[in-house]
Amino acid sequence: MKQITFDKVKLGGFWKSRNDINKSATIPTIYDRFSDTGRFDSLKCEWQEGMPHKPHIFWDSDIAKWIEAAAYTIQMEPDKDLEAKIDEAVDNLAAHQWEDGYINTYYTVVEPANRFTNRDNHELYCAGHLLEAAVAYYNATGKDKLLNIMKKYIDYIEKRFIIEDSALFNTPGHEEIELALIKLYNLTRDKKYLDMCRHFIDKRGTTEKDDKQKRNWIGHDYDQTHLPVRKQREAVGHSVRALYLYCGMADLALETGDKELFDACDALFDSAVFRRMYITGGVGATAHGERFADDFILPNDVAYAETCASIALAFFARRMSNIEPDSKYADAAEITIYNNSLAGVSLDGHSFFYVNPLEINLDRHNASKKFFESRANLLTQRIEVFDCSCCPPNISRMIASIGDFLYSMDDTTVYAHHYMESETEFDGIKIKQETRYPAHGGVRFTVSGMKGKKFAVRIPAWSSYTSLNGEKLNTDIKKGYAYLDVTEDEQVFDFYFEMKTRLVCANPMVDSDNGRVAVCRGPVVYCAESVLNDGIKLNTLSIKTPLEAGTQWDDSINGYKVIIKANEDKPCNELYKNYDPADVTEKEITMLPYYAFANNGESDMLIWFRHD
Amino acid sequence: MKQITFDKVKLGGFWKSRNDINKSATIPTIYDRFSDTGRFDSLKCEWQEGMPHKPHIFWDSDIAKWIEAAAYTIQMEPDKDLEAKIDEAVDNLAAHQWEDGYINTYYTVVEPANRFTNRDNHELYCAGHLLEAAVAYYNATGKDKLLNIMKKYIDYIEKRFIIEDSALFNTPGHEEIELALIKLYNLTRDKKYLDMCRHFIDKRGTTEKDDKQKRNWIGHDYDQTHLPVRKQREAVGHSVRALYLYCGMADLALETGDKELFDACDALFDSAVFRRMYITGGVGATAHGERFADDFILPNDVAYAETCASIALAFFARRMSNIEPDSKYADAAEITIYNNSLAGVSLDGHSFFYVNPLEINLDRHNASKKFFESRANLLTQRIEVFDCSCCPPNISRMIASIGDFLYSMDDTTVYAHHYMESETEFDGIKIKQETRYPAHGGVRFTVSGMKGKKFAVRIPAWSSYTSLNGEKLNTDIKKGYAYLDVTEDEQVFDFYFEMKTRLVCANPMVDSDNGRVAVCRGPVVYCAESVLNDGIKLNTLSIKTPLEAGTQWDDSINGYKVIIKANEDKPCNELYKNYDPADVTEKEITMLPYYAFANNGESDMLIWFRHD
Repeated sequence: MKQITFDKVKLGGFWKSRNDINKSATIPTIYDRFSDTGRFDSLKCEWQEGMPHKPHIFWDSDIAKWIEAAAYTIQMEPDKDLEAKIDEAVDNLAAHQWEDGYINTYYTVVEPANRFTNRDNHELYCAGHLLEAAVAYYNATGKDKLLNIMKKYIDYIEKRFIIEDSALFNTPGHEEIELALIKLYNLTRDKKYLDMCRHFIDKRGTTEKDDKQKRNWIGHDYDQTHLPVRKQREAVGHSVRALYLYCGMADLALETGDKELFDACDALFDSAVFRRMYITGGVGATAHGERFADDFILPNDVAYAETCASIALAFFARRMSNIEPDSKYADAAEITIYNNSLAGVSLDGHSFFYVNPLEINLDRHNASKKFFESRANLLTQRIEVFDCSCCPPNISRMIASIGDFLYSMDDTTVYAHHYMESETEFDGIKIKQETRYPAHGGVRFTVSGMKGKKFAVRIPAWSSYTSLNGEKLNTDIKKGYAYLDVTEDEQVFDFYFEMKTRLVCANPMVDSDNGRVAVCRGPVVYCAESVLNDGIKLNTLSIKTPLEAGTQWDDSINGYKVIIKANEDKPCNELYKNYDPADVTEKEITMLPYYAFANNGESDMLIWFRHD
Repeated sequence: MKQITFDKVKLGGFWKSRNDINKSATIPTIYDRFSDTGRFDSLKCEWQEGMPHKPHIFWDSDIAKWIEAAAYTIQMEPDKDLEAKIDEAVDNLAAHQWEDGYINTYYTVVEPANRFTNRDNHELYCAGHLLEAAVAYYNATGKDKLLNIMKKYIDYIEKRFIIEDSALFNTPGHEEIELALIKLYNLTRDKKYLDMCRHFIDKRGTTEKDDKQKRNWIGHDYDQTHLPVRKQREAVGHSVRALYLYCGMADLALETGDKELFDACDALFDSAVFRRMYITGGVGATAHGERFADDFILPNDVAYAETCASIALAFFARRMSNIEPDSKYADAAEITIYNNSLAGVSLDGHSFFYVNPLEINLDRHNASKKFFESRANLLTQRIEVFDCSCCPPNISRMIASIGDFLYSMDDTTVYAHHYMESETEFDGIKIKQETRYPAHGGVRFTVSGMKGKKFAVRIPAWSSYTSLNGEKLNTDIKKGYAYLDVTEDEQVFDFYFEMKTRLVCANPMVDSDNGRVAVCRGPVVYCAESVLNDGIKLNTLSIKTPLEAGTQWDDSINGYKVIIKANEDKPCNELYKNYDPADVTEKEITMLPYYAFANNGESDMLIWFRHD
């Protein structure tokens, strides 16, 4: 099966608007903030001790992800100014590539004697992101300067890690290069890159040279070296590291048909998604090592749920969809895309969350900082740049390449995994989607050039009733996909996925959500902000059941607000009093998509509400 | 008004049983553990650098509180063995009293050059507790050796802090000596001690010599020096320090009729009890400085609620009852006595809680230790001795002198503040209470020698219906007390306070308790332990309303268990699913008094339950 890439997809509707903001606001903002903070200048390698803006070990990756995002937009619509900015960065990189091929800003100017001595210092991670950027920029422009730089660097990495085995560690401390090597393999079809990917994946969790360097406080599971990857079944450790690894494993499984590797990926997916994922698609519950916590440990107000981790989960799920068409993958990708990932950027495109809380209670937050434990990482408002600013360019590149998620195909079947207003052309096939998704569940496909093939359409898990061309869908559903015969040169498949506003509860094992419900509509999780509800304390509300919900279109969020009925606990003077169910008043609550929260000023926010 | 002291009270029923355990188990256990840990031997002042059991700055106070508790039991029932142990300790103290009167084990052997240089080092706190012990032991036995030692030491303290003003600080870093000086004043009627108490109280929060020594991280409110005490209106800072101060303030107000001081006490009481107290009478919500948190910040699972703080609150409330007969004081004392304080000791009398959580969820607790913040202070089981072991002898002395709480009197009126099976004689008056309190709300008073006086009986705030001699009480109630005319030489007042099992809720401002209810019966707060309920996860239960509750007598807890009906969330396989109210099964929950929890093995425990 092969993925249809975003460049074949012309978006409209919800995602066109997001892409417009990404291009007009987000990419320039990130460029400006990365300039302010010395990241772009660091490529000139002029830094010396005592100067400001000391290069950080992960700065190359920040720039690389920005280049990648910018390249995707250029591929859809040329932009000479943006190209000039990228070319300048590439020229600086080229000027400071070592004779032997090595490139890394930090190790060139800060610790030139220590390259490849510390596996935790992100060299191979930076190499991976630069390689992704190189492939993207080549695809966008045909310019091969960065690509050639990176090929030379990859050769050097092969020499040090495989041919000579002279680096002081065996595998990257932060995975990423594995999936990047597959991108280079797919571009060049040079089997060497596939073999390098397999080398890093197979070596991982076997003998590591640098065991004595390991951070014992955090354990070998932190960077997924506790077991050989084929034996891993639980999503553990640093969540971004883990999910980039799983992406590489899935890529390798797709390219090689490695069933054992796929089975490991499938078990890891289930662990991450069905036992360790927030309802928003956030993963990595804890700030302590930015890690997955144990099954069902999903606290809402101290949730870590890094933007990068949910993006990585979406990338992993997309890869799994391309191996095995099981709707659990695209369902999970959809949840993370429309909720945790998209919440990572403000509606105006200028500011970002790194950590994505599922509850903000400012009183408790402030009391907790003052009287209980520190919550240094928990922001209640988005900001423009972080010291560790991986998330902003990551959400930017995801939005710019969101079309990647739509379709894949094999010899007999075209798979529609997601729904976006769009026109797509590939291999003589045209598919038009007319839809207001994610605001409405109607999706009208017009397909041409597919006569004789199957058209496999994912039925979203949340759809309470599905019709095709006005009648209840009666096709057999196989692992969540309806397989339809295409019998005409041009054929219309008019799907309707009933999108009711509904109440969702969590497994009773999730202590943090016991007795609570979340309001969802289609793939979108809703939340309430006190600032949009007369400053009310949200935990004094309980949603009335059965749910009474109305919708209200809002252009600014490109979707519906939801108005629901609740009871509010009446204020009282006593600290404790006899419980009286009559001590409540009716209250309407305005809820908005989680992806749109924190655009209205600092506020309490709640997803999981009590119910009556 | 004067308090009737415990030595006039012969207890039966619930409190006799508690006193028997206190005498037979708790006092010997504490003696043994204080011996094991070198506390008693430290009085010999033989410690030198390099030896084990280095004396701690507060060890004198630990021993003093144990002497005080032991003295109270001796006063009720002579015990030569116990006296011998106390005499040995007193002899050791006497042998190492300095020529000038100074006594402090730590400063004698560890820092002999530094006495009265560091206000945080508990010298005046230790002096206060030794003074309380001296008065108690003199009252119990007539032996005045310790009393004379302490008088000499108090003279020295007067010299250094008042006459010479040569100590490097003005007021105790940990209050306690203020209330102890009033005890010495009451024993001796020497006005000098009253004046010393007033000195320390009036000086506090004005100019402090040692401002530069102050722990800036924790603020001046930590030890209540942020304002002159008469201007203080909010209960802040270290909760035991605060409440011992308030005790001293109330004592001084009672002795001097100082209205301004009483008003401060009253406001501080309201702040502590009506905005910052757990339903169990626990105060000092946070481990961070063992402090009061802000209004309504009362988290259950990380509650600090130190045993000593609730005992100090009971002592403070008792003093306030003796100034102004307002039932809010005795109601609060009752809550703390029967819940947080009594939970501080195991049913067998051998082990203790320092911190008293209102919720234990072992899974979350362990995940929190592993993945989130450390919870070093939160114990889930009682232990026999702590490094800082103030609480065990404190609960012991409170139980031994619990009769102190019962009555006070003025020229015209005898006040009954609390209910305990007992016979009390004082000033030609006899009062017999026949009651199964706190298990039952019937209290039959037989009073004699009171003809012509008023008998003022507190009507507990929780009483849903009150009758006297079989008829609905129709006396006017003044600030919670029914004032009854005593017209016979011997007269029976047969009270019935209806004690329904009831559901209590918290003020909606208490975020931690929103949407939750606690089961209470009379003054007793109930909790459930998973270990007594088939290991169920308690947060998966919601109590059915209206409450359906049965009771079940249990000798081991000297009270009733309560059986209530609840719904349990059904287990499921999904992590998230559409909410269906039918996904529950009925479940009976066995609840037991909070004071009896953690006697059945390590377990989850919950007070605040969801309700339907």
